[in-house]
Amino acid sequence: MDVRETARLISRVESGDEAVRDRVKALYRQGGRARIVGISGPPGAGKSTLVDQLIERYRARGLRVAIVAIDPSSPFSGGAVLGDRVRMARHATDRGVFIRSLAARGALGGLTAATGDVLAILDAAGWDIILLETVGVGQNEVEVMRIVPAVLLVQNPGDGDAVQSVKAGTLEIAHIFAVNKADMAGADKVARNLQEMIAHKARQTSEGWEEPVLLTEASNGRGMDELVAAIDARFAFLDANPDLARREEKTRLQARIKELVTQHIHRRIATSVKNGGMADLLDAVADRVQDPHSVAETLFRDITA
Amino acid sequence: MDVRETARLISRVESGDEAVRDRVKALYRQGGRARIVGISGPPGAGKSTLVDQLIERYRARGLRVAIVAIDPSSPFSGGAVLGDRVRMARHATDRGVFIRSLAARGALGGLTAATGDVLAILDAAGWDIILLETVGVGQNEVEVMRIVPAVLLVQNPGDGDAVQSVKAGTLEIAHIFAVNKADMAGADKVARNLQEMIAHKARQTSEGWEEPVLLTEASNGRGMDELVAAIDARFAFLDANPDLARREEKTRLQARIKELVTQHIHRRIATSVKNGGMADLLDAVADRVQDPHSVAETLFRDITA
Repeated sequence: MDVRETARLISRVESGDEAVRDRVKALYRQGGRARIVGISGPPGAGKSTLVDQLIERYRARGLRVAIVAIDPSSPFSGGAVLGDRVRMARHATDRGVFIRSLAARGALGGLTAATGDVLAILDAAGWDIILLETVGVGQNEVEVMRIVPAVLLVQNPGDGDAVQSVKAGTLEIAHIFAVNKADMAGADKVARNLQEMIAHKARQTSEGWEEPVLLTEASNGRGMDELVAAIDARFAFLDANPDLARREEKTRLQARIKELVTQHIHRRIATSVKNGGMADLLDAVADRVQDPHSVAETLFRDITA
Repeated sequence: MDVRETARLISRVESGDEAVRDRVKALYRQGGRARIVGISGPPGAGKSTLVDQLIERYRARGLRVAIVAIDPSSPFSGGAVLGDRVRMARHATDRGVFIRSLAARGALGGLTAATGDVLAILDAAGWDIILLETVGVGQNEVEVMRIVPAVLLVQNPGDGDAVQSVKAGTLEIAHIFAVNKADMAGADKVARNLQEMIAHKARQTSEGWEEPVLLTEASNGRGMDELVAAIDARFAFLDANPDLARREEKTRLQARIKELVTQHIHRRIATSVKNGGMADLLDAVADRVQDPHSVAETLFRDITA
């Protein structure tokens, strides 16, 4: 599949074109070779500079690299997103690099479902490394990371108390931590906080993988070789533990399938609303003659009847 | 309904006890009188101090006030939550005040659904004002605010560039903005940024309500009378625009019903997984003999057959 075809398929997924689904199904069955790395962290943490450095290193190895950047749903951060993309522009003429933003317009399930399809397309298209970068800060972006086998969380010394700044759920899904802009004051403290939280988590859910915490300065390349080595180590760990890797893969697939089913249901509800099927019920609930639970039960019965 | 009974019903909702649902249904139909105010904002913004001040003012008017604090799902912020609660402790012996934390353990739909039930219980129990405070920072907490008619967003001068710090989706759901700790440098700048974003939003979705941006210092009471007046004005606006108020109420109910139906579906899927019904399918997808979309279609057909 050439780049033009890849880009066209991704656009169709992004726009919610359901007719592309059969193609994606076939492509999924051809995939499974790409190494997919998720990169998350608060705005301004230096994720894009870091991605730029990763691209350079993977390209030096002769690997073909695709980057998918999930843009936040809010229209108010458009500027930052554009700025981030510009930083990677030096790779734009490299045919071994594919850069693509993905708008997070849709619903929760919608974004994760669409991202899964985009990853399947890039995987089947033969890209060796896929870097999935989230630009936003919402729970949506955390959820997306759940479908990725290697997740890098980027923090900053400036994030202050790491205990507060690590978003709920983010710690649980990350496999590698980078404290970027490590030349700033407080980097060691953030790294220590992260290590404490990881130790706390490990006591609850250890599966054998020990999450490394790295100090990086993406802007001058410091710590980037170590970061690439840590990502390699994550995949080597999964290769060396095939049972665990498969169990994790199946957990990811199950979450993904659950969201796809939810999407089907939501489409069914939306159709019902559009056809006026819910108008009387909503009026009854607003009048407190009916209640939300009873209406939900009725709808569920109708859908599953 | 006395306080003990109220607390017991809330505990049953929180623990996911489905047998309480019939009681909640009946209570919902008796409600509709309480004024429900949502209070959201980043950790450390001073939300609890502000809530403490609101309680004092509503109590001075002779109103009975219930506070529901949504705790974040991550176990790593437990300390902050406890600290917040302590600040309100001076009201603990006031029988006109009811304070309750709600753990956000469940899934996305689960939290919002449970919160909706808790609000229905407190409303039917005759509490005049219900303050729904979110302690966490995730998308879950934003979603919860969608079921509330008056949402206050608390920001700080220290939040830096408000354009970045206002979480995606938060701006859209807020009706009143408070820049708290307004004695700190940069408060005016944050207020100006918020006003610009509101003006931008108003051009797209104006429904007649003009979101005020207030400077407050909850710790010494500055701006708190104005804040109470702004909340009064929000409800007066809804009373004066019954068609709009009903449309908004129906939008909220529709979102709530959709989540309740989704919960039914997820329970159905969970049962299927538990009974081993998905094991073979998951293996086939992991082997790339099957794909997630085809399995989701099969499950959807099974559920709706």
